Amino acid sequence: MTLPSYLQGAWWTPVDDAGAIVVRDASTGAEVTRISSAGVDLAGALDYARTVGQRSLGALTFHQRALLLKQFGQALTERKSELYEIAKTAGATVRDSMIDVDGGIGVLFTYSSKGRRELPNARIYLDGPAETLSKDGSFLGRHVYTRLPGAVVQINAFNFPTWGPLEKFAPTFLAGVPSLIKPATPTAHLTEAWVRILVDSGLLPEGALQLVSGALPGVFDLLRLGDAVAFTGSASTAKALQAQTPDGVRFTSETDSINASVLGPDAAPGTPVFDAFVRQLMVELTAKTGQKCTAIRRAIVPRGLMPAVGDALRVKLSEKVVVGDPHVEGVTMGPVVSLAQRDEVLRGVRKLVDAGGTLLVGSTAAPEVVRADGTRGWAPDGAFLDPIVVGFGPGAPEAVHEVEAFGPVSSMIGYDTLAEAVSLVNSGGGSLVTSVATDDPAVAAELLAGIGAYNGRVLFLDQVDARSSTGHGSPVPHLVHGGPGRAGGGEELGGIRAVLHFMQRTAVQGSPQMLTAITGVWHPGAAVAGGEHPFRKPLSRLRVGDQLASASREVTLDDIETFAHFTGDTFYAHMDEEAAAANPFFPGRVAHGYLLISFAAGLFVDPAPGPVLANYGLENLRFVTPVSPGDSIRVILTAKQITPRETDDYGEVRWDAVIRNQNDDLVASYDVLTLVSKQ
Amino acid sequence: MTLPSYLQGAWWTPVDDAGAIVVRDASTGAEVTRISSAGVDLAGALDYARTVGQRSLGALTFHQRALLLKQFGQALTERKSELYEIAKTAGATVRDSMIDVDGGIGVLFTYSSKGRRELPNARIYLDGPAETLSKDGSFLGRHVYTRLPGAVVQINAFNFPTWGPLEKFAPTFLAGVPSLIKPATPTAHLTEAWVRILVDSGLLPEGALQLVSGALPGVFDLLRLGDAVAFTGSASTAKALQAQTPDGVRFTSETDSINASVLGPDAAPGTPVFDAFVRQLMVELTAKTGQKCTAIRRAIVPRGLMPAVGDALRVKLSEKVVVGDPHVEGVTMGPVVSLAQRDEVLRGVRKLVDAGGTLLVGSTAAPEVVRADGTRGWAPDGAFLDPIVVGFGPGAPEAVHEVEAFGPVSSMIGYDTLAEAVSLVNSGGGSLVTSVATDDPAVAAELLAGIGAYNGRVLFLDQVDARSSTGHGSPVPHLVHGGPGRAGGGEELGGIRAVLHFMQRTAVQGSPQMLTAITGVWHPGAAVAGGEHPFRKPLSRLRVGDQLASASREVTLDDIETFAHFTGDTFYAHMDEEAAAANPFFPGRVAHGYLLISFAAGLFVDPAPGPVLANYGLENLRFVTPVSPGDSIRVILTAKQITPRETDDYGEVRWDAVIRNQNDDLVASYDVLTLVSKQ
Repeated sequence: MTLPSYLQGAWWTPVDDAGAIVVRDASTGAEVTRISSAGVDLAGALDYARTVGQRSLGALTFHQRALLLKQFGQALTERKSELYEIAKTAGATVRDSMIDVDGGIGVLFTYSSKGRRELPNARIYLDGPAETLSKDGSFLGRHVYTRLPGAVVQINAFNFPTWGPLEKFAPTFLAGVPSLIKPATPTAHLTEAWVRILVDSGLLPEGALQLVSGALPGVFDLLRLGDAVAFTGSASTAKALQAQTPDGVRFTSETDSINASVLGPDAAPGTPVFDAFVRQLMVELTAKTGQKCTAIRRAIVPRGLMPAVGDALRVKLSEKVVVGDPHVEGVTMGPVVSLAQRDEVLRGVRKLVDAGGTLLVGSTAAPEVVRADGTRGWAPDGAFLDPIVVGFGPGAPEAVHEVEAFGPVSSMIGYDTLAEAVSLVNSGGGSLVTSVATDDPAVAAELLAGIGAYNGRVLFLDQVDARSSTGHGSPVPHLVHGGPGRAGGGEELGGIRAVLHFMQRTAVQGSPQMLTAITGVWHPGAAVAGGEHPFRKPLSRLRVGDQLASASREVTLDDIETFAHFTGDTFYAHMDEEAAAANPFFPGRVAHGYLLISFAAGLFVDPAPGPVLANYGLENLRFVTPVSPGDSIRVILTAKQITPRETDDYGEVRWDAVIRNQNDDLVASYDVLTLVSKQ
Repeated sequence: MTLPSYLQGAWWTPVDDAGAIVVRDASTGAEVTRISSAGVDLAGALDYARTVGQRSLGALTFHQRALLLKQFGQALTERKSELYEIAKTAGATVRDSMIDVDGGIGVLFTYSSKGRRELPNARIYLDGPAETLSKDGSFLGRHVYTRLPGAVVQINAFNFPTWGPLEKFAPTFLAGVPSLIKPATPTAHLTEAWVRILVDSGLLPEGALQLVSGALPGVFDLLRLGDAVAFTGSASTAKALQAQTPDGVRFTSETDSINASVLGPDAAPGTPVFDAFVRQLMVELTAKTGQKCTAIRRAIVPRGLMPAVGDALRVKLSEKVVVGDPHVEGVTMGPVVSLAQRDEVLRGVRKLVDAGGTLLVGSTAAPEVVRADGTRGWAPDGAFLDPIVVGFGPGAPEAVHEVEAFGPVSSMIGYDTLAEAVSLVNSGGGSLVTSVATDDPAVAAELLAGIGAYNGRVLFLDQVDARSSTGHGSPVPHLVHGGPGRAGGGEELGGIRAVLHFMQRTAVQGSPQMLTAITGVWHPGAAVAGGEHPFRKPLSRLRVGDQLASASREVTLDDIETFAHFTGDTFYAHMDEEAAAANPFFPGRVAHGYLLISFAAGLFVDPAPGPVLANYGLENLRFVTPVSPGDSIRVILTAKQITPRETDDYGEVRWDAVIRNQNDDLVASYDVLTLVSKQ
């Protein structure tokens, strides 16, 4: 049967799949599924995304979308064992599926959590503070992000059929933009499986996700301003697709790169850092059978340590790695995804050897493996490979920085000086990640200064994080994934940064009132409302601009003395007239800053139980004008931002607090953070 | 004489300028200068930038570079009248030069100020907070920006020979990356003039700025990963250049766009907002003789108001606009830059008329102008034009959204509904800016939601900011300049955002100690040093990680009572056991948050005069565990970030403050901000 697509809210299969591509089990060669999108209505799918998808996502706030991401993650978690089973057909061991499936689910949970903690419960994202553009404060500027009005076409690589599309989908969904997902052919059936789980869950907003199992003929001609393309795959394909992308359509790419791992000069054999380096090299060679765009392709080690690293690696591999059919218990490394891929990897190894490399570890001969029936032996229909390391002498050829054998293959190159190590790393022409194993902070700082601009991510392994590190090859949703040059020049993940990739930043200029209306956040100078104490209002009645202007209170010398002795803060600026006056910032003895904000709280707090549940923090406090004994202060407190929580009966309210003295000079400004009941 | 270039630290002129282009006075046709870069050594210039320029800029911190920007601005201010004189040859009135010259100087001052206020006094920029990636806190992630290792080639448009290159140069310089500036031919002599002032000042770090007066033959073949191109000009040129840009070289473009200005449905004739709209339209038609990529090309007004807008605009123009040679006092609008440009503008007007437009304002005939000798009449050698508005009836043709007559020309289109206004704005295919004149916040919010994703900047004019607005056509350095689609898809300016365009964001993972070593900012878990109270150490001896662990202090019920009555903060959670216990967050009566941070200050403050001059603020305060009567608290204060000021004998120190209770639970965390003497 042909693998279905999910389009315009329904499952769809081509009427005629005569040209379908057969996907085979990577270990046995048995047919698994057939892939064809012949006759697919891409224009209809894009139109559905831009209308129905935009409408249903636009009805939700960031927090509501974030909550759905959590529910998607829960739905997939419940049925993840089904996905593990399917993944075995593509050569993935259980450990590989933990990377792909659990990793993908983890992205959903992280974006759910970050979306609710770091985004407002609104539809517009504010970037940076307001900028005052006129002396009188009547003209302000502020950067806002609004979502792209189109659809995001996601073109994925075969190696991460779950994590790959999900790490694109989660931020796109959170941004409020519909996705059209195209998985790679060899593993499209795994993507189809998790999409089906989400569809079955009934949780997907209409039009938020569509799936094309197969090619996307002519899709670039259908794209327009407001759409975006997110691509993962080879650098050459990225280049070809980018050239087809119409003007105004964003194109981001994340491409395989020739990533490096550097063993520091201090990391001698026997040290924990040396062991951590070798262990990581073993993991990166074998996890996903080396089919990771982040895998270590170049181990860069002090020249004299090359044999020691090779020996240690061989020991590790023999202890830990069992190659075979992932359906069999105990197998730790499966085949690569297909026979074609195996041949491609072997061609890469050949290029490295032809360029002067020698096989330090492993062999290019067909390995003896654990077969589907549990026996060991040759498996002619399986795409199996040995883990291979190709070593190079001084003056490593260009091929070592250019050839990517996308399987369990790495090169090893020696270096003599740190400057040479930097130069070798950068010869990769831009990488997704470089890792460095060192306990020496000076080595770390020098390397980062040299290689930073050539890498999207740099991981430092030392004896402290050797065990807790998430690993060279693992992008984490909190940090950007992508890199310059050869790595595609794009960025994905990185928490909220990736959400903003699917939104447009616009500088908005206007009066405080207009900026308040547009952003939902009160700006000084905008309308305010007095009357009932705003601390008496639950969220259902509280509005931004609700304000309390307090009475004023004199700050006496006695108050300062009392506070100093009560708290123990007898800093001379509060206690000693002469010494205080000698300080460049004070006219003489002045009140403690914390006295002022404590008195301010006394002026604005409403004592009886009410909707304000707690003061959970304070931000951006600045003391501007010192307060001398005999001065008076008053506080103006204005509801600035209201963030109801989706899953609690309260929410956060941020209050703009300003303390002024008897001359109306600004004494202090800050934001008070409170939790307030909805009712 | 051929206009010199400034290359590899010296002025250079071609040996043979046989093919030089003659630049003529826009009003009189007299020869002004000749432009040729025949024989220029671009490879040498780029190499000089990448070696000498990188080295000299790398020796400076952000603050040191920022201070130089201020000094550049001062040097230009002193001699700006020279620049005004030269600009007149290109048709620029004094008002035009205030936009170009003073605007350019303003960018230098803003970046100087922002650089010192918003960047650390260091070479690495930290983006966002640290992310904890392991449960035990031994593995962290953080985003850092390091500068691009190459050169930035800046390709400028003719209309802003001062502001244009300076708005690219200021953020590039602040990032620490050398610039190679290519001005446009018709106004290259003005760029040469201000570059000469900077060179004469002796302030320029070696290799930080080079100037090519003329073409850049083959420059794209010389670029490589780590270089960048910043282009301003036409969309078609941008596309051609981007296609030539090698992989891994960043290319940003800011291109002319068909910007719109919308008159809100509420803005009836006679209202201040209507007047502001017309005044702004007049300014945008005539300033720089309409040669601004941000000028209003489409006035979108309620259909019934088109005649009223036309009438009001004609009155304004007749009152305010005197077309002529800018050398003559009283002239408020000069010629466009050249006869060729004039003809190009007239061709654009012809296309609009051919598409169905009618001339509402102005004429395409050669206008009568104020000539160089002060007389009025025809000026056949001058590139003079009338301000022109072309009106369109219902169903405006595509041409109105596509044809840019880059001179004093705008279209006027009517609309009936807000949705239609949104659709018209967006038909421009992406703009640098749209302005909206309305006093109705609901209109503003609805328009922004519809047009945000199609604009780099949206300006709202209302009666509050009608006078203080910096205007539709004026990018300000604080806000991003650029836009999606037709506007080039790039961003410039926007304060520090633009500095980061010339740096690479890298996610760094490692132990707290390694992140501290790399960033210069202390991370919890990294090494600390006790001993002498850190408040006794001036900046010369203070190091990040210097720490004070205080004694502990019991918080009694009496303390809470005393604080409550002293401050007036008698909130029930502190005063009423039963009511407090009913609150979801408190076990019973608890201490005031401000009591805790006041007691903490009492525990860490060192009373005698010393290097710590003042506590100027506090950030990121969060109350985590409530403190009940009888609990004890202690505070751990660690020097986190040290920012010496370049121009003062003190600097800022940020302290990590953590309050813990007797069980070591986290009570509160925050950053204390202090000013500390250098010696």
